[in-house]
Amino acid sequence: MPLSPDEIDTLTAFAGTLADAARAAILPYFRTAMAVDDKGEQWGGAKGYDPVTEGDRAGEAAIRALIEAHYPDHGILGEEFGPKKGASPFTWVLDPIDGTRAFITGLPLWGTLIGLNDGTRPVLGVMDQGFTGERFTGSAAGSFLNGKPIRTRACPSLGAARLMATGPYLFRTAQTKAAFERVAARAQLLRFGGDCYAYCMVAAGHVDAVVESSLETYDIQALIPIIEGAGGVVTAWDGGDPQAGGNVVAAGDRRVHAEILALINS
Amino acid sequence: MPLSPDEIDTLTAFAGTLADAARAAILPYFRTAMAVDDKGEQWGGAKGYDPVTEGDRAGEAAIRALIEAHYPDHGILGEEFGPKKGASPFTWVLDPIDGTRAFITGLPLWGTLIGLNDGTRPVLGVMDQGFTGERFTGSAAGSFLNGKPIRTRACPSLGAARLMATGPYLFRTAQTKAAFERVAARAQLLRFGGDCYAYCMVAAGHVDAVVESSLETYDIQALIPIIEGAGGVVTAWDGGDPQAGGNVVAAGDRRVHAEILALINS
Repeated sequence: MPLSPDEIDTLTAFAGTLADAARAAILPYFRTAMAVDDKGEQWGGAKGYDPVTEGDRAGEAAIRALIEAHYPDHGILGEEFGPKKGASPFTWVLDPIDGTRAFITGLPLWGTLIGLNDGTRPVLGVMDQGFTGERFTGSAAGSFLNGKPIRTRACPSLGAARLMATGPYLFRTAQTKAAFERVAARAQLLRFGGDCYAYCMVAAGHVDAVVESSLETYDIQALIPIIEGAGGVVTAWDGGDPQAGGNVVAAGDRRVHAEILALINS
Repeated sequence: MPLSPDEIDTLTAFAGTLADAARAAILPYFRTAMAVDDKGEQWGGAKGYDPVTEGDRAGEAAIRALIEAHYPDHGILGEEFGPKKGASPFTWVLDPIDGTRAFITGLPLWGTLIGLNDGTRPVLGVMDQGFTGERFTGSAAGSFLNGKPIRTRACPSLGAARLMATGPYLFRTAQTKAAFERVAARAQLLRFGGDCYAYCMVAAGHVDAVVESSLETYDIQALIPIIEGAGGVVTAWDGGDPQAGGNVVAAGDRRVHAEILALINS
Protein backbone atom coordinates (compact mmCIF):
# COMPACT_ATOMS: atom_id res chain seq x y z
CA MET A 1 0.00 0.00 0.00
CA PRO A 2 1.53 3.31 -1.03
CA LEU A 3 2.30 5.84 1.69
CA SER A 4 -0.11 8.80 1.90
CA PRO A 5 1.36 12.28 1.33
CA ASP A 6 1.07 12.91 5.08
CA GLU A 7 2.93 9.69 5.91
CA ILE A 8 5.64 10.62 3.41
CA ASP A 9 6.04 14.02 5.04
CA THR A 10 6.23 12.57 8.55
CA LEU A 11 8.64 9.80 7.64
CA THR A 12 10.84 12.11 5.53
CA ALA A 13 11.13 14.48 8.50
CA PHE A 14 11.98 11.53 10.74
CA ALA A 15 14.61 10.30 8.26
CA GLY A 16 16.10 13.80 8.39
CA THR A 17 16.37 13.48 12.17
CA LEU A 18 18.15 10.16 11.68
CA ALA A 19 20.57 11.79 9.22
CA ASP A 20 21.25 14.64 11.67
CA ALA A 21 22.12 12.12 14.39
CA ALA A 22 24.35 10.08 12.07
CA ARG A 23 26.14 13.22 10.84
CA ALA A 24 26.96 14.26 14.40
CA ALA A 25 28.18 10.75 15.24
CA ILE A 26 30.30 10.24 12.09
CA LEU A 27 31.97 13.61 11.38
CA PRO A 28 34.38 13.38 14.34
CA TYR A 29 35.92 10.33 12.63
CA PHE A 30 36.37 12.00 9.22
CA ARG A 31 39.90 13.21 8.38
CA THR A 32 41.36 12.07 11.66
CA ALA A 33 45.02 12.05 10.63
CA MET A 34 46.84 8.85 11.45
CA ALA A 35 50.38 7.87 10.58
CA VAL A 36 51.35 4.29 9.75
CA ASP A 37 54.08 2.58 11.74
CA ASP A 38 56.94 0.50 10.36
CA LYS A 39 54.83 -2.65 10.40
CA GLY A 40 52.34 -0.94 8.13
CA GLU A 41 49.73 -0.69 10.88
CA GLN A 42 47.67 2.41 11.52
CA TRP A 43 48.20 3.98 14.88
CA GLY A 44 46.18 6.52 16.74
CA GLY A 45 45.50 5.05 20.12
CA ALA A 46 44.12 1.57 20.65
CA LYS A 47 45.54 -1.24 18.53
CA GLY A 48 43.46 -1.93 15.48
CA TYR A 49 41.76 1.48 15.59
CA ASP A 50 40.05 2.05 12.27
CA PRO A 51 38.19 5.36 11.88
CA VAL A 52 35.85 4.20 9.12
CA THR A 53 34.68 1.18 11.13
CA GLU A 54 34.35 3.29 14.27
CA GLY A 55 32.43 5.97 12.35
CA ASP A 56 30.19 3.33 10.74
CA ARG A 57 29.34 1.83 14.12
CA ALA A 58 28.77 5.19 15.82
CA GLY A 59 26.51 6.33 12.97
CA GLU A 60 24.45 3.15 12.87
CA ALA A 61 24.09 3.04 16.67
CA ALA A 62 22.78 6.63 16.66
CA ILE A 63 20.24 5.84 13.93
CA ARG A 64 19.07 2.56 15.46
CA ALA A 65 18.47 4.16 18.88
CA LEU A 66 16.12 6.73 17.30
CA ILE A 67 14.23 4.15 15.22
CA GLU A 68 13.80 1.88 18.24
CA ALA A 69 12.48 4.80 20.31
CA HIS A 70 10.06 6.19 17.71
CA TYR A 71 9.09 3.20 15.54
CA PRO A 72 9.75 0.13 17.72
CA ASP A 73 7.74 -2.12 15.39
CA HIS A 74 9.87 -1.27 12.33
CA GLY A 75 12.59 -3.66 11.17
CA ILE A 76 16.22 -2.56 10.69
CA LEU A 77 18.77 -3.86 8.19
CA GLY A 78 22.14 -2.22 8.76
CA GLU A 79 25.63 -2.85 7.46
CA GLU A 80 27.20 -2.96 10.92
CA PHE A 81 24.85 -4.59 13.40
CA GLY A 82 22.84 -7.08 11.36
CA PRO A 83 19.09 -7.43 10.81
CA LYS A 84 16.30 -6.75 13.30
CA LYS A 85 12.94 -8.13 12.21
CA GLY A 86 9.98 -5.83 12.85
CA ALA A 87 6.33 -6.52 13.60
CA SER A 88 5.30 -4.07 10.87
CA PRO A 89 6.16 -4.53 7.17
CA PHE A 90 8.47 -1.48 7.25
CA THR A 91 12.24 -1.93 7.40
CA TRP A 92 14.93 0.76 7.56
CA VAL A 93 17.92 -0.11 5.38
CA LEU A 94 21.11 1.63 6.53
CA ASP A 95 24.68 2.18 5.39
CA PRO A 96 26.15 4.76 7.77
CA ILE A 97 29.27 5.35 5.63
CA ASP A 98 28.83 4.39 1.99
CA GLY A 99 32.10 5.07 0.16
CA THR A 100 34.73 3.68 2.48
CA ARG A 101 37.64 4.58 0.17
CA ALA A 102 36.41 8.16 -0.16
CA PHE A 103 36.09 8.42 3.62
CA ILE A 104 39.59 7.03 4.19
CA THR A 105 41.22 9.30 1.61
CA GLY A 106 39.52 12.44 2.95
CA LEU A 107 37.23 13.04 -0.06
CA PRO A 108 33.76 14.49 0.66
CA LEU A 109 31.99 11.96 -1.58
CA TRP A 110 30.97 9.35 1.00
CA GLY A 111 27.46 9.47 2.37
CA THR A 112 25.08 8.16 5.00
CA LEU A 113 22.38 6.08 3.31
CA ILE A 114 18.98 5.73 4.98
CA GLY A 115 16.23 3.90 3.12
CA LEU A 116 12.75 2.84 4.16
CA ASN A 117 11.37 -0.31 2.58
CA ASP A 118 7.58 -0.94 2.83
CA GLY A 119 8.00 -4.71 2.59
CA THR A 120 7.96 -4.72 -1.20
CA ARG A 121 10.31 -1.90 -2.25
CA PRO A 122 12.16 1.19 -0.98
CA VAL A 123 9.70 4.07 -0.68
CA LEU A 124 11.86 6.74 0.92
CA GLY A 125 15.57 7.46 0.68
CA VAL A 126 18.11 9.86 2.16
CA MET A 127 21.77 10.38 1.17
CA ASP A 128 23.47 12.73 3.60
CA GLN A 129 26.97 14.15 2.97
CA GLY A 130 27.89 15.62 6.31
CA PHE A 131 31.07 17.48 5.34
CA THR A 132 29.54 19.49 2.46
CA GLY A 133 26.20 19.70 4.27
CA GLU A 134 24.28 18.22 1.33
CA ARG A 135 21.19 16.12 2.00
CA PHE A 136 19.45 14.38 -0.90
CA THR A 137 15.97 12.94 -0.26
CA GLY A 138 13.56 11.05 -2.51
CA SER A 139 10.08 9.53 -2.43
CA ALA A 140 6.83 9.51 -4.43
CA ALA A 141 6.65 13.23 -3.52
CA GLY A 142 9.77 13.91 -5.62
CA SER A 143 13.47 14.36 -4.95
CA PHE A 144 15.21 17.23 -3.23
CA LEU A 145 18.67 18.56 -2.38
CA ASN A 146 18.50 20.45 0.93
CA GLY A 147 14.79 20.94 0.31
CA LYS A 148 15.06 22.22 -3.28
CA PRO A 149 13.56 20.02 -6.03
CA ILE A 150 16.03 18.21 -8.28
CA ARG A 151 15.44 16.52 -11.66
CA THR A 152 17.50 14.30 -13.93
CA ARG A 153 18.43 15.84 -17.28
CA ALA A 154 17.30 14.77 -20.72
CA CYS A 155 19.99 12.94 -22.69
CA PRO A 156 19.15 11.21 -25.96
CA SER A 157 21.97 8.68 -26.14
CA LEU A 158 25.00 7.17 -24.44
CA GLY A 159 27.22 9.02 -26.91
CA ALA A 160 26.11 12.29 -25.28
CA ALA A 161 26.20 10.89 -21.74
CA ARG A 162 28.42 11.43 -18.70
CA LEU A 163 29.04 8.02 -17.13
CA MET A 164 30.30 7.27 -13.63
CA ALA A 165 31.41 4.21 -11.67
CA THR A 166 33.11 3.98 -8.31
CA GLY A 167 36.15 2.26 -9.77
CA PRO A 168 37.29 -0.43 -12.19
CA TYR A 169 38.01 -2.71 -9.19
CA LEU A 170 34.24 -3.13 -8.63
CA PHE A 171 34.02 -5.33 -11.74
CA ARG A 172 35.33 -8.57 -10.30
CA THR A 173 34.69 -11.00 -13.15
CA ALA A 174 35.89 -10.98 -16.75
CA GLN A 175 32.24 -10.86 -17.83
CA THR A 176 31.24 -7.82 -15.75
CA LYS A 177 34.50 -6.07 -16.66
CA ALA A 178 33.89 -6.61 -20.38
CA ALA A 179 30.26 -5.48 -20.10
CA PHE A 180 31.30 -2.27 -18.34
CA GLU A 181 34.00 -1.62 -20.94
CA ARG A 182 31.48 -1.93 -23.77
CA VAL A 183 29.39 0.77 -22.10
CA ALA A 184 32.34 3.00 -21.13
CA ALA A 185 33.71 2.95 -24.69
CA ARG A 186 30.49 4.55 -26.00
CA ALA A 187 30.02 7.23 -23.34
CA GLN A 188 30.93 10.84 -24.00
CA LEU A 189 32.78 11.12 -20.69
CA LEU A 190 33.80 8.59 -18.02
CA ARG A 191 34.58 9.56 -14.45
CA PHE A 192 35.61 7.14 -11.71
CA GLY A 193 35.20 7.72 -7.98
CA GLY A 194 31.72 8.42 -6.78
CA ASP A 195 29.96 5.84 -4.64
CA CYS A 196 26.52 7.07 -3.52
CA TYR A 197 27.41 10.63 -4.53
CA ALA A 198 27.43 9.63 -8.21
CA TYR A 199 23.81 8.41 -8.05
CA CYS A 200 22.79 11.72 -6.50
CA MET A 201 24.54 13.58 -9.33
CA VAL A 202 22.33 11.56 -11.72
CA ALA A 203 19.28 12.65 -9.72
CA ALA A 204 20.43 16.29 -9.83
CA GLY A 205 21.04 16.25 -13.61
CA HIS A 206 24.85 16.50 -13.70
CA VAL A 207 25.63 12.88 -14.57
CA ASP A 208 23.63 10.72 -17.00
CA ALA A 209 24.34 7.18 -15.80
CA VAL A 210 26.05 5.03 -13.19
CA VAL A 211 26.96 1.41 -13.99
CA GLU A 212 28.19 -0.72 -11.09
CA SER A 213 28.66 -4.25 -9.87
CA SER A 214 29.15 -6.01 -6.54
CA LEU A 215 26.73 -3.77 -4.62
CA GLU A 216 25.09 -4.80 -1.35
CA THR A 217 21.38 -4.21 -0.75
CA TYR A 218 22.16 -1.36 1.71
CA ASP A 219 24.37 0.31 -0.96
CA ILE A 220 21.39 0.88 -3.28
CA GLN A 221 18.04 0.85 -1.42
CA ALA A 222 18.15 4.47 -0.20
CA LEU A 223 19.26 5.68 -3.65
CA ILE A 224 16.37 4.12 -5.59
CA PRO A 225 13.68 6.61 -4.39
CA ILE A 226 16.09 9.51 -4.95
CA ILE A 227 16.72 8.57 -8.58
CA GLU A 228 13.12 7.61 -9.32
CA GLY A 229 11.73 10.67 -7.54
CA ALA A 230 13.93 12.86 -9.76
CA GLY A 231 12.60 11.25 -12.96
CA GLY A 232 15.34 8.66 -13.47
CA VAL A 233 15.35 4.89 -13.71
CA VAL A 234 17.38 2.27 -11.85
CA THR A 235 17.37 -1.47 -12.46
CA ALA A 236 19.56 -4.54 -12.26
CA TRP A 237 21.70 -5.27 -15.36
CA ASP A 238 19.00 -7.70 -16.54
CA GLY A 239 16.34 -4.98 -16.28
CA GLY A 240 14.88 -6.44 -13.08
CA ASP A 241 14.44 -5.11 -9.55
CA PRO A 242 17.69 -3.55 -8.25
CA GLN A 243 16.87 -3.53 -4.55
CA ALA A 244 18.96 -6.59 -3.69
CA GLY A 245 22.12 -4.89 -5.05
CA GLY A 246 24.54 -6.83 -7.26
CA ASN A 247 24.80 -5.39 -10.77
CA VAL A 248 23.01 -2.05 -11.07
CA VAL A 249 22.39 0.59 -13.77
CA ALA A 250 20.97 4.02 -12.94
CA ALA A 251 20.20 6.59 -15.61
CA GLY A 252 18.55 9.96 -15.80
CA ASP A 253 16.95 9.34 -19.21
CA ARG A 254 15.21 6.10 -20.25
CA ARG A 255 16.87 6.20 -23.68
CA VAL A 256 20.34 6.05 -22.11
CA HIS A 257 19.19 3.31 -19.72
CA ALA A 258 17.85 1.19 -22.59
CA GLU A 259 21.04 1.65 -24.63
CA ILE A 260 23.19 0.60 -21.65
CA LEU A 261 21.11 -2.51 -20.94
CA ALA A 262 21.35 -3.53 -24.60
CA LEU A 263 25.15 -3.12 -24.57
CA ILE A 264 25.58 -4.97 -21.29
CA ASN A 265 23.50 -7.88 -22.52
CA SER A 266 24.93 -8.01 -26.07
CA MET B 1 66.71 34.61 -4.15
CA PRO B 2 64.28 33.21 -1.58
CA LEU B 3 61.33 35.35 -0.55
CA SER B 4 61.57 36.95 2.90
CA PRO B 5 58.94 35.97 5.49
CA ASP B 6 57.31 39.37 4.99
CA GLU B 7 57.18 38.92 1.22
CA ILE B 8 55.65 35.46 1.69
CA ASP B 9 52.97 36.92 3.97
CA THR B 10 52.15 39.74 1.56
CA LEU B 11 52.08 37.53 -1.53
CA THR B 12 50.08 34.79 0.22
CA ALA B 13 47.47 37.35 1.23
CA PHE B 14 47.38 38.65 -2.34
CA ALA B 15 47.01 35.10 -3.70
CA GLY B 16 44.04 34.73 -1.33
CA THR B 17 42.47 37.83 -2.88
CA LEU B 18 43.00 36.26 -6.31
CA ALA B 19 41.31 33.05 -5.13
CA ASP B 20 38.37 35.02 -3.70
CA ALA B 21 37.88 36.74 -7.05
CA ALA B 22 38.15 33.48 -8.99
CA ARG B 23 35.69 31.75 -6.66
CA ALA B 24 33.09 34.47 -7.17
CA ALA B 25 33.58 34.32 -10.95
CA ILE B 26 33.51 30.52 -11.28
CA LEU B 27 30.82 29.29 -8.84
CA PRO B 28 27.89 30.62 -10.91
CA TYR B 29 28.94 28.15 -13.64
CA PHE B 30 29.14 25.09 -11.34
CA ARG B 31 26.17 22.70 -11.48
CA THR B 32 24.30 24.71 -14.06
CA ALA B 33 21.93 22.00 -15.22
CA MET B 34 21.79 21.56 -18.97
CA ALA B 35 19.95 18.97 -20.98
CA VAL B 36 21.35 17.52 -24.19
CA ASP B 37 19.33 17.73 -27.39
CA ASP B 38 18.74 14.95 -29.90
CA LYS B 39 21.92 15.83 -31.79
CA GLY B 40 23.90 15.26 -28.60
CA GLU B 41 24.65 18.95 -28.18
CA GLN B 42 24.40 20.76 -24.88
CA TRP B 43 21.79 23.49 -24.79
CA GLY B 44 21.34 26.29 -22.35
CA GLY B 45 21.35 29.42 -24.42
CA ALA B 46 23.91 30.27 -27.06
CA LYS B 47 25.07 27.50 -29.37
CA GLY B 48 28.27 25.91 -28.15
CA TYR B 49 27.75 27.12 -24.57
CA ASP B 50 30.13 25.19 -22.33
CA PRO B 51 30.03 26.01 -18.61
CA VAL B 52 33.52 24.74 -17.81
CA THR B 53 35.11 26.85 -20.55
CA GLU B 54 33.03 29.86 -19.57
CA GLY B 55 33.93 29.38 -15.90
CA ASP B 56 37.61 28.94 -16.75
CA ARG B 57 37.66 32.16 -18.75
CA ALA B 58 35.72 34.15 -16.15
CA GLY B 59 38.01 32.92 -13.38
CA GLU B 60 41.22 33.63 -15.25
CA ALA B 61 40.03 37.08 -16.36
CA ALA B 62 39.23 37.99 -12.75
CA ILE B 63 42.66 36.85 -11.55
CA ARG B 64 44.59 38.54 -14.39
CA ALA B 65 42.87 41.89 -13.81
CA LEU B 66 44.00 41.90 -10.18
CA ILE B 67 47.58 40.88 -10.99
CA GLU B 68 47.84 43.53 -13.70
CA ALA B 69 46.54 46.17 -11.28
CA HIS B 70 48.75 45.25 -8.29
CA TYR B 71 51.86 43.68 -9.83
CA PRO B 72 52.03 45.00 -13.40
CA ASP B 73 55.64 43.82 -13.82
CA HIS B 74 54.80 40.16 -13.00
CA GLY B 75 54.41 37.64 -15.79
CA ILE B 76 51.27 35.48 -16.18
CA LEU B 77 50.99 31.95 -17.55
CA GLY B 78 47.36 30.87 -17.68
CA GLU B 79 45.52 27.96 -19.24
CA GLU B 80 42.99 30.13 -21.02
CA PHE B 81 44.61 33.34 -22.26
CA GLY B 82 48.22 32.43 -22.95
CA PRO B 83 51.47 33.82 -21.57
CA LYS B 84 52.26 37.40 -20.61
CA LYS B 85 55.97 38.06 -20.12
CA GLY B 86 56.80 40.26 -17.14
CA ALA B 87 59.66 42.71 -16.48
CA SER B 88 60.31 41.01 -13.10
CA PRO B 89 61.38 37.36 -12.73
CA PHE B 90 58.04 36.49 -11.06
CA THR B 91 55.32 34.68 -13.02
CA TRP B 92 51.85 33.67 -11.83
CA VAL B 93 50.89 30.23 -13.12
CA LEU B 94 47.11 29.73 -13.28
CA ASP B 95 44.58 27.00 -13.88
CA PRO B 96 41.20 28.49 -12.98
CA ILE B 97 39.38 25.13 -13.09
CA ASP B 98 41.66 22.14 -12.63
CA GLY B 99 39.55 18.98 -12.77
CA THR B 100 37.31 19.54 -15.76
CA ARG B 101 35.56 16.16 -15.46
CA ALA B 102 34.83 16.75 -11.76
CA PHE B 103 33.42 20.19 -12.58
CA ILE B 104 31.23 18.83 -15.38
CA THR B 105 29.87 15.94 -13.30
CA GLY B 106 29.04 18.15 -10.30
CA LEU B 107 31.70 16.78 -7.93
CA PRO B 108 33.33 19.25 -5.50
CA LEU B 109 36.86 18.04 -6.28
CA TRP B 110 37.93 20.59 -8.92
CA GLY B 111 39.99 23.54 -7.80
CA THR B 112 41.41 26.90 -8.77
CA LEU B 113 45.20 26.66 -8.96
CA ILE B 114 47.29 29.78 -8.40
CA GLY B 115 51.08 29.41 -8.28
CA LEU B 116 53.84 31.99 -8.12
CA ASN B 117 57.15 31.10 -9.77
CA ASP B 118 60.24 33.16 -8.88
CA GLY B 119 61.91 32.48 -12.22
CA THR B 120 63.49 29.23 -11.07
CA ARG B 121 60.72 27.36 -9.24
CA PRO B 122 57.22 27.73 -7.73
CA VAL B 123 57.53 29.44 -4.33
CA LEU B 124 53.88 29.93 -3.40
CA GLY B 125 50.77 27.91 -4.21
CA VAL B 126 47.01 28.07 -3.64
CA MET B 127 44.36 25.43 -4.36
CA ASP B 128 40.90 26.82 -3.78
CA GLN B 129 37.76 24.63 -3.77
CA GLY B 130 34.97 27.14 -3.91
CA PHE B 131 32.00 24.83 -3.29
CA THR B 132 33.31 23.27 -0.05
CA GLY B 133 35.03 26.53 0.94
CA GLU B 134 38.44 24.87 1.34
CA ARG B 135 41.58 26.85 0.57
CA PHE B 136 44.96 25.09 0.67
CA THR B 137 48.09 27.30 0.64
CA GLY B 138 51.78 26.44 0.70
CA SER B 139 55.18 28.15 0.76
CA ALA B 140 58.48 28.06 2.67
CA ALA B 141 56.37 29.18 5.67
CA GLY B 142 54.50 25.84 5.66
CA SER B 143 51.18 24.60 4.31
CA PHE B 144 47.71 25.42 5.56
CA LEU B 145 44.04 24.51 5.04
CA ASN B 146 41.90 27.56 5.73
CA GLY B 147 44.72 28.95 7.84
CA LYS B 148 45.31 25.81 9.94
CA PRO B 149 48.69 24.03 9.51
CA ILE B 150 48.63 20.73 7.62
CA ARG B 151 51.29 17.98 7.45
CA THR B 152 51.76 14.85 5.41
CA ARG B 153 51.62 11.61 7.38
CA ALA B 154 54.41 9.11 7.99
CA CYS B 155 54.07 5.93 5.91
CA PRO B 156 56.91 3.42 5.77
CA SER B 157 56.10 1.65 2.49
CA LEU B 158 53.86 1.49 -0.57
CA GLY B 159 52.22 -1.61 0.91
CA ALA B 160 50.75 0.60 3.67
CA ALA B 161 49.96 3.49 1.34
CA ARG B 162 46.79 5.04 -0.03
CA LEU B 163 47.40 5.85 -3.70
CA MET B 164 45.39 8.17 -5.93
CA ALA B 165 45.30 9.07 -9.62
CA THR B 166 42.75 11.09 -11.53
CA GLY B 167 41.87 8.19 -13.80
CA PRO B 168 43.34 5.35 -15.83
CA TYR B 169 42.75 7.42 -19.01
CA LEU B 170 45.61 9.76 -18.01
CA PHE B 171 48.14 7.04 -18.87
CA ARG B 172 48.17 7.38 -22.64
CA THR B 173 51.03 5.09 -23.63
CA ALA B 174 51.56 1.38 -22.97
CA GLN B 175 54.72 2.29 -21.08
CA THR B 176 53.13 4.80 -18.67
CA LYS B 177 50.13 2.50 -18.20
CA ALA B 178 52.37 -0.44 -17.28
CA ALA B 179 54.46 1.70 -14.92
CA PHE B 180 51.33 2.92 -13.12
CA GLU B 181 50.00 -0.62 -12.85
CA ARG B 182 53.23 -1.82 -11.23
CA VAL B 183 52.77 0.86 -8.58
CA ALA B 184 49.02 0.36 -8.14
CA ALA B 185 49.42 -3.39 -7.65
CA ARG B 186 51.60 -2.80 -4.58
CA ALA B 187 49.54 -0.06 -2.90
CA GLN B 188 47.31 -0.84 0.07
CA LEU B 189 44.43 1.14 -1.45
CA LEU B 190 43.84 2.73 -4.86
CA ARG B 191 41.31 5.48 -5.44
CA PHE B 192 40.64 7.15 -8.77
CA GLY B 193 39.13 10.59 -9.25
CA GLY B 194 40.97 13.42 -7.60
CA ASP B 195 42.73 15.98 -9.77
CA CYS B 196 44.29 18.77 -7.67
CA TYR B 197 42.24 17.69 -4.66
CA ALA B 198 44.20 14.43 -4.39
CA TYR B 199 47.53 16.31 -4.04
CA CYS B 200 46.02 18.41 -1.25
CA MET B 201 44.89 15.21 0.52
CA VAL B 202 48.55 14.12 0.41
CA ALA B 203 49.53 17.45 1.97
CA ALA B 204 46.87 17.03 4.68
CA GLY B 205 47.94 13.47 5.57
CA HIS B 206 44.94 11.50 4.26
CA VAL B 207 46.53 10.10 1.08
CA ASP B 208 50.12 8.87 0.77
CA ALA B 209 50.86 9.28 -2.93
CA VAL B 210 49.59 10.53 -6.28
CA VAL B 211 51.03 9.12 -9.52
CA GLU B 212 50.00 10.86 -12.73
CA SER B 213 50.92 11.41 -16.33
CA SER B 214 50.09 13.91 -19.09
CA LEU B 215 50.03 16.94 -16.75
CA GLU B 216 50.49 20.50 -17.99
CA THR B 217 52.79 22.92 -16.16
CA TYR B 218 49.77 24.84 -14.78
CA ASP B 219 48.32 21.57 -13.42
CA ILE B 220 51.24 21.10 -11.01
CA GLN B 221 53.06 24.37 -10.25
CA ALA B 222 50.68 25.63 -7.55
CA LEU B 223 50.61 22.20 -5.89
CA ILE B 224 54.39 21.87 -5.46
CA PRO B 225 54.72 24.42 -2.62
CA ILE B 226 51.62 22.95 -0.91
CA ILE B 227 53.08 19.42 -0.87
CA GLU B 228 56.63 20.53 0.00
CA GLY B 229 55.43 22.98 2.66
CA ALA B 230 53.54 20.13 4.34
CA GLY B 231 56.65 17.92 4.45
CA GLY B 232 56.04 15.92 1.27
CA VAL B 233 58.05 15.44 -1.90
CA VAL B 234 57.07 15.84 -5.55
CA THR B 235 59.20 15.05 -8.59
CA ALA B 236 58.98 13.90 -12.18
CA TRP B 237 58.96 10.12 -12.74
CA ASP B 238 62.73 10.27 -13.37
CA GLY B 239 63.28 12.02 -10.03
CA GLY B 240 63.85 15.41 -11.67
CA ASP B 241 62.11 18.76 -11.43
CA PRO B 242 58.31 18.35 -11.80
CA GLN B 243 57.44 21.97 -12.60
CA ALA B 244 57.03 21.43 -16.34
CA GLY B 245 54.28 18.81 -15.73
CA GLY B 246 54.30 15.56 -17.71
CA ASN B 247 54.81 12.50 -15.48
CA VAL B 248 54.62 13.38 -11.79
CA VAL B 249 54.86 11.55 -8.43
CA ALA B 250 53.90 13.22 -5.17
CA ALA B 251 54.26 11.49 -1.81
CA GLY B 252 53.91 12.38 1.83
CA ASP B 253 56.83 10.20 2.97
CA ARG B 254 60.20 9.94 1.18
CA ARG B 255 60.27 6.16 1.65
CA VAL B 256 57.05 5.78 -0.35
CA HIS B 257 58.34 8.21 -2.98
CA ALA B 258 61.60 6.24 -3.38
CA GLU B 259 59.73 2.94 -3.67
CA ILE B 260 57.41 4.35 -6.34
CA LEU B 261 60.30 5.79 -8.40
CA ALA B 262 62.11 2.44 -8.25
CA LEU B 263 58.98 0.58 -9.44
CA ILE B 264 58.26 3.06 -12.22
CA ASN B 265 61.81 2.84 -13.53
CA SER B 266 62.20 -0.94 -13.11
